[in-house]
Amino acid sequence: MDEGLLKQMRFEAEEIFRCSLEAVDPYEAVKRFVRVQGDRLILGTKDRPPVELDLTKFRRISLVGGGKATAPMARAMEDLLGNRIHKGVIVVKYGFTEKLLLTDIIEAGHPLPDTNGVKGTEKILDFLKGAGEDDLIFSLISGGGSALLPYPAGKITLEEKQELTLSLLECGAGIDEINAVRKHISSSKGGQMARAAYPATIINLMLSDVVGDKMDVIASGPFVPDSSTFKDVMEILEKYDLNDIPRVIREHIKAGLEGQIPETPKADDSIFDRINNFVIGSNIIALEAAREKAEQVGYKALILSSMVEGETREVARVHSAIAKEIARTGLPVSPPACIISGGETTVTIRGKGFGGRNQEFCLAAALDLAGLPSRVVVLSGGTDGNDGPTDAAGAIVDPDTVSRGEALGMKAIEFLDNNDAYHYFERTNDLLMTGPTNTNVMDVRLVLVR
Amino acid sequence: MDEGLLKQMRFEAEEIFRCSLEAVDPYEAVKRFVRVQGDRLILGTKDRPPVELDLTKFRRISLVGGGKATAPMARAMEDLLGNRIHKGVIVVKYGFTEKLLLTDIIEAGHPLPDTNGVKGTEKILDFLKGAGEDDLIFSLISGGGSALLPYPAGKITLEEKQELTLSLLECGAGIDEINAVRKHISSSKGGQMARAAYPATIINLMLSDVVGDKMDVIASGPFVPDSSTFKDVMEILEKYDLNDIPRVIREHIKAGLEGQIPETPKADDSIFDRINNFVIGSNIIALEAAREKAEQVGYKALILSSMVEGETREVARVHSAIAKEIARTGLPVSPPACIISGGETTVTIRGKGFGGRNQEFCLAAALDLAGLPSRVVVLSGGTDGNDGPTDAAGAIVDPDTVSRGEALGMKAIEFLDNNDAYHYFERTNDLLMTGPTNTNVMDVRLVLVR
Repeated sequence: MDEGLLKQMRFEAEEIFRCSLEAVDPYEAVKRFVRVQGDRLILGTKDRPPVELDLTKFRRISLVGGGKATAPMARAMEDLLGNRIHKGVIVVKYGFTEKLLLTDIIEAGHPLPDTNGVKGTEKILDFLKGAGEDDLIFSLISGGGSALLPYPAGKITLEEKQELTLSLLECGAGIDEINAVRKHISSSKGGQMARAAYPATIINLMLSDVVGDKMDVIASGPFVPDSSTFKDVMEILEKYDLNDIPRVIREHIKAGLEGQIPETPKADDSIFDRINNFVIGSNIIALEAAREKAEQVGYKALILSSMVEGETREVARVHSAIAKEIARTGLPVSPPACIISGGETTVTIRGKGFGGRNQEFCLAAALDLAGLPSRVVVLSGGTDGNDGPTDAAGAIVDPDTVSRGEALGMKAIEFLDNNDAYHYFERTNDLLMTGPTNTNVMDVRLVLVR
Repeated sequence: MDEGLLKQMRFEAEEIFRCSLEAVDPYEAVKRFVRVQGDRLILGTKDRPPVELDLTKFRRISLVGGGKATAPMARAMEDLLGNRIHKGVIVVKYGFTEKLLLTDIIEAGHPLPDTNGVKGTEKILDFLKGAGEDDLIFSLISGGGSALLPYPAGKITLEEKQELTLSLLECGAGIDEINAVRKHISSSKGGQMARAAYPATIINLMLSDVVGDKMDVIASGPFVPDSSTFKDVMEILEKYDLNDIPRVIREHIKAGLEGQIPETPKADDSIFDRINNFVIGSNIIALEAAREKAEQVGYKALILSSMVEGETREVARVHSAIAKEIARTGLPVSPPACIISGGETTVTIRGKGFGGRNQEFCLAAALDLAGLPSRVVVLSGGTDGNDGPTDAAGAIVDPDTVSRGEALGMKAIEFLDNNDAYHYFERTNDLLMTGPTNTNVMDVRLVLVR
């Protein structure tokens, strides 16, 4: 094995990963998507036709939003529009703040919502309700926005909402079912902020942390039409025999069924004529940036999918199988080849170790590739820079990783079975460290073969 | 959903699968690889430079071999060479026979070897030992050849060999370790037929049922150099604390370590100068035929890998993720797209149902694709036509499969969790039926998106 070349490939993999991070940096993503030329606002990237607005048509320009990456998004908007901004209110996770000149930042609980979140959301809803036809409002939404923008409907409390969500999780309800229920016991989710903002013009910029970038799922889609109904909610509760739910929630749903409470707004509602939804950062955008960089460095690059889910170590085996085929027959692409995939896998915890899905992916891949004469490097990293509870983003491995571990007295398979990839890679020096990145569009995986 | 188009795609998928089967039909594979022009023998396919032999240089031409698909391979050789064939001896599984004019067929036990297999192998070894420099011998090897060509070394019995293999399996030894041991307690495996045949010229034609087509693994490589040693075998037995192995085996290994019994022949042994090994049928050849047909039908086709292993339902999720990405962004290839993969996955049995890995793959994929508006068809089939213990080769599914099952009162997830895909697809009419195909190069999977 040519150690120098492997080292170079590891360096290239890290470079490609960093390029994918840059492409989904919240500040940069806003700056790339929104341009201001005099009084003209131009929205769009080089890949799609721009949308133009005449800013003089609006009396006021404001910012709202929520999510872990929303503060740098707001900073970008302040840099772009400066004093033209009349007002801003955003809700971010405790500590995920920035120095902003014109925008109020409310810090709140995540992943468990708290009263600060409710207060912040109330402030946003009140502002939206007061907006008129001459208001232009930018909404800045990012991952975590659902927990950070809670507003239980009617007399329902946060605790009662959480209790129901927990019951749904326990009885095995699917994520679409849970979302349908949550939207119907909230006054902010499922397009209800769009209703509150009518007749203002909304430009909703989203950083997606959701597989497939479904806009109604990102932060529970406060400005996006909802396709679920109170009737669906009732059927879901019946399906799982959830008779024990808080009385106030049951009454709320009953009132909804009887038409005493309005449905979440649907796609044909004319309020959406004034809503402009854009996903400005997402896993596929990160993968496309990785592809571009990989091609610059000289690889033939292939994006497999940004929607990869499933048990991590088995997903790793499929990636290893592709690496081996490239080395053997030059299929699906001939070397130098770079296979790129994204999405978010899961780890079924069987051991008591320390790690994250990206590190587990790399350890499983290292085992598959162990001892191969081919020049293969595999990188897997979380775009938020934190893989699981660790301070690493992920790891980078090659066909020598397992033997390096053996030389240190470690058996890779035992660490994998104990879900202890972090302690393995800490010693083999294969951890991928980026520090916090302020963004989150799930994971990026790279397979390099030369 | 356009039902007519889905029907067409299902038909196309089946056509593509049948083309991949044809490409690895044992009879056709031999006929494609071996051509006779007068006294010239030409070996090779259009993809590689041919090897030519002058048949007049040989006094006798003979056939040996073993495996489930070896009878049709021998028939092809008889059709090609007719009365030029001096003699033939092959060992096949009970019932896997054909009418041959010049070749003796011995039927024997598979997957458990029996005395018929030993007798047949002895006949072959005796013939090889009697061969001289003017002998040209075709060896016809296919899946199952390891069990069908057993010849325990020295005084070891078949039962003692099996006992040791079982112990190795139980203590979790890897397949490479088991193979190393087996080759060293046999007189036929690990290149030992090559030694017996010296100085004859051997043309060894192999149909591979092994991931990665490793020639030393296919039927335990009777004509292929072995890289493992008696020393490795000793270390493996020590590693797994196998002290309880039959005495005669222990003595045999000790004699080998002390040089009283020759090592299996190694790659630098000059006996291999007269051995010509060719894989004439394999999973990648099946996949390449599938790609060619898919392109004829109008799809952009991409071979992912012929080496896919791992837990079936998780492997299916990766394939579904690629299907969804194609439908959403046209990556990795834009529709109409055909993704092709091969290899052999495993199923961890959790339920009590009836099925096979290909049917399980399709049921898991059907769940992932359920309700998608996209035009997607997924086929997975075993090239031997028998998926697991069933009479189906696999299944074909689409985004409507799950709802069709629901209309019949079946929940797909329950059937999947019970490993009962056969009974599900029997009722939804999604089974893929080919009948026995006489070949086996593992599985072929197709994902079609229009």
